[in-house]
Amino acid sequence: MAEHSLKLRLKVELPDGTRLGYGKVDLLKAIQQEASISAAARALGMSYRRAWSLINEMNACFAEPVVKTHMGGANRGGAEVTAKGQYLIDCYERIQAQAEQATHESMVQLATELRLDRSL
Amino acid sequence: MAEHSLKLRLKVELPDGTRLGYGKVDLLKAIQQEASISAAARALGMSYRRAWSLINEMNACFAEPVVKTHMGGANRGGAEVTAKGQYLIDCYERIQAQAEQATHESMVQLATELRLDRSL
Repeated sequence: MAEHSLKLRLKVELPDGTRLGYGKVDLLKAIQQEASISAAARALGMSYRRAWSLINEMNACFAEPVVKTHMGGANRGGAEVTAKGQYLIDCYERIQAQAEQATHESMVQLATELRLDRSL
Repeated sequence: MAEHSLKLRLKVELPDGTRLGYGKVDLLKAIQQEASISAAARALGMSYRRAWSLINEMNACFAEPVVKTHMGGANRGGAEVTAKGQYLIDCYERIQAQAEQATHESMVQLATELRLDRSL
């Protein structure tokens, strides 16, 4: 496949306007990596408060939470991504891969146009 | 095809971080419709200043501007989308259609999961 330098960024928008996208999915993946919400937020250059706001938005979408914490918020204890959170990561990554594959040729063409115009 | 209630929102991210997405493309389409930047901004609930900022970001991506104005900024005169702007609209809409088609089944599955969990 021809290469291009563009990234395709996807968000899934729910009827109420909530968006499930790369920002929230990247946060879930960082929590898996760091096993801590505060460490995950730090790794992404995001405030602890902002991380919780994104987690709460995701939790509101499903019957079960996407992240489980081991200690109270004040302790900033350990955290893990639940089966529902893993479902969301997997689902998002599948959608991303399908979209990237389907749009690859168009992205190559757009990248070529942009490169001709401004030497990207 | 099965229906679902989710929208797929796409942005194309350039290597410098600039994003070409539905916000900018919707603005171009509104300018086509209204033949005026201020009317387009108003139709989208966006400030005139914000509309110009988005247009300038798009212009910086290409060798030719995406929008041509007929009178100076202070007059808030007529505006039209150029061939380059039309290229961007067409390219974005093709990428959107390809991505929607490729991810349709996954989106139906996600919509079903969300509907089960919170009666969407």
